[in-house]
Amino acid sequence: MEVISGIGELKALRSCWMRPIGLVPTMGYLHDGHVALVRRAREESKTVVVTIFVNPTQFGPSEDFGCYPRAFERDVSILQAEAVDVVFAPSSAVMYPEGFSTWVEVEGITSRFEGAIRPGHFRGVATVCSKLFNIVDPERAYFGQKDAQQVAVIRKMVQDLNMNLDIEAVPTVREADGLAMSSRNAYLNGPERAAAAVLFRALSAVQEMYRAGCRDMTKMSNCMRRIVGEEKLVELDYAAIVDPASFEVVNSLEHPALAIVAARVGSTRLIDNMPLHV
Amino acid sequence: MEVISGIGELKALRSCWMRPIGLVPTMGYLHDGHVALVRRAREESKTVVVTIFVNPTQFGPSEDFGCYPRAFERDVSILQAEAVDVVFAPSSAVMYPEGFSTWVEVEGITSRFEGAIRPGHFRGVATVCSKLFNIVDPERAYFGQKDAQQVAVIRKMVQDLNMNLDIEAVPTVREADGLAMSSRNAYLNGPERAAAAVLFRALSAVQEMYRAGCRDMTKMSNCMRRIVGEEKLVELDYAAIVDPASFEVVNSLEHPALAIVAARVGSTRLIDNMPLHV
Repeated sequence: MEVISGIGELKALRSCWMRPIGLVPTMGYLHDGHVALVRRAREESKTVVVTIFVNPTQFGPSEDFGCYPRAFERDVSILQAEAVDVVFAPSSAVMYPEGFSTWVEVEGITSRFEGAIRPGHFRGVATVCSKLFNIVDPERAYFGQKDAQQVAVIRKMVQDLNMNLDIEAVPTVREADGLAMSSRNAYLNGPERAAAAVLFRALSAVQEMYRAGCRDMTKMSNCMRRIVGEEKLVELDYAAIVDPASFEVVNSLEHPALAIVAARVGSTRLIDNMPLHV
Repeated sequence: MEVISGIGELKALRSCWMRPIGLVPTMGYLHDGHVALVRRAREESKTVVVTIFVNPTQFGPSEDFGCYPRAFERDVSILQAEAVDVVFAPSSAVMYPEGFSTWVEVEGITSRFEGAIRPGHFRGVATVCSKLFNIVDPERAYFGQKDAQQVAVIRKMVQDLNMNLDIEAVPTVREADGLAMSSRNAYLNGPERAAAAVLFRALSAVQEMYRAGCRDMTKMSNCMRRIVGEEKLVELDYAAIVDPASFEVVNSLEHPALAIVAARVGSTRLIDNMPLHV
């Protein structure tokens, strides 16, 4: 396994790699959710490239960039055990040299939900993904379904700018009690960790309603709010049922839909979602 | 020579093309300046792709998109005679389907000169070039030095987003009296056409001052303004001496610099520039 930190170095080596190339962009501090992405990439690619880069431009000024958890040596061991071919781990100075001034902006979807709560977040995500896609030039890039709005933003960018890769969303990996795996779960103390599972319970309840034939979206959103509201350590940001491509609130459930939820548990912000289908 | 209008169709054929691929993006209504780009691409590429697309997103609401000159059949004949391999001529609906919402924004340089006078212009240019670069995937793309700020914006975008191509600027081709070739010259009536040559005379005068040892930028800018001011059909927008990469006004002439000028001749807006060197 090669560990590379320079862009020119990676581009020079790239011409020797067997195709298809599968890219798994991560911010490190890897958990089983990341491993699921890597395994899927491994199955479908001749060369698997995992990037580890805590991207400063997708964090707001009051967010957790400085204390975002890092465990580089452990991450490298995990990726080695998964037979990854290349780890790309650039510094911020390599990715954003002095004078950097180009941004990729996906309008519309980025004004809703996570985009509304975290201004600039998706601009940072779209820009860093554009860069990583150009640097690695993969046939496919793999993202976790847990960050469903991120997946939708990146798919829209790829489509609008005619980029030459496919975006694959990999199902969310969950803890035993249903909590979606996230590097930010490390921030939770004992009682918070127990309370956090309420997001999964709320989403599951809505999925059950849907499977039982309910198509009343107000009732379903209220159900999520009520369940989350029962946990006093958890403060809801939003609970809604949306179109999975546009993240617009849906008016009918004839088409595929996604139940989404975001909440703060202590000072930690968590998001989760569940597709609605029978 | 193949003439292609679909993006999927072009991408499907692309894998059979010999590399390197040279791309010449144009808005059509070709003149000898475009031919110079095509010839340079032909010399340096195994496959030459010329795009003809009047890009609506780089025109302001009060600009000349609707009446921009078009001559598709004649353009195709010219390109055939230059042994171009592929003409890509998509419709606006193909390039910007309903719901299109992703933009590439280069900050800083785009707030100055042409960017200040034409808000949104360079966003449209950067976005369409991103798309064309992804669609054609060339080793090199060729642009006219006449649009020097456009060249600088595209180079900055390519650098910041780590795109996999080189941007080549080809020297401006001029009429006998020095007027830079431009599709917009077609708008000029007889007296305007004669008056328009004043831009070249102003730039040439500054280049002469520079070669004679003058390094006083105020004197040089004033000289351009005075010469242009003598033509009563010509109204100056700006005349300045700038850094050719950032388009910031330079404070000293120790580094390479560019004299730039923009003016309206009747209702037609013309720009031109000249590098300052000995």
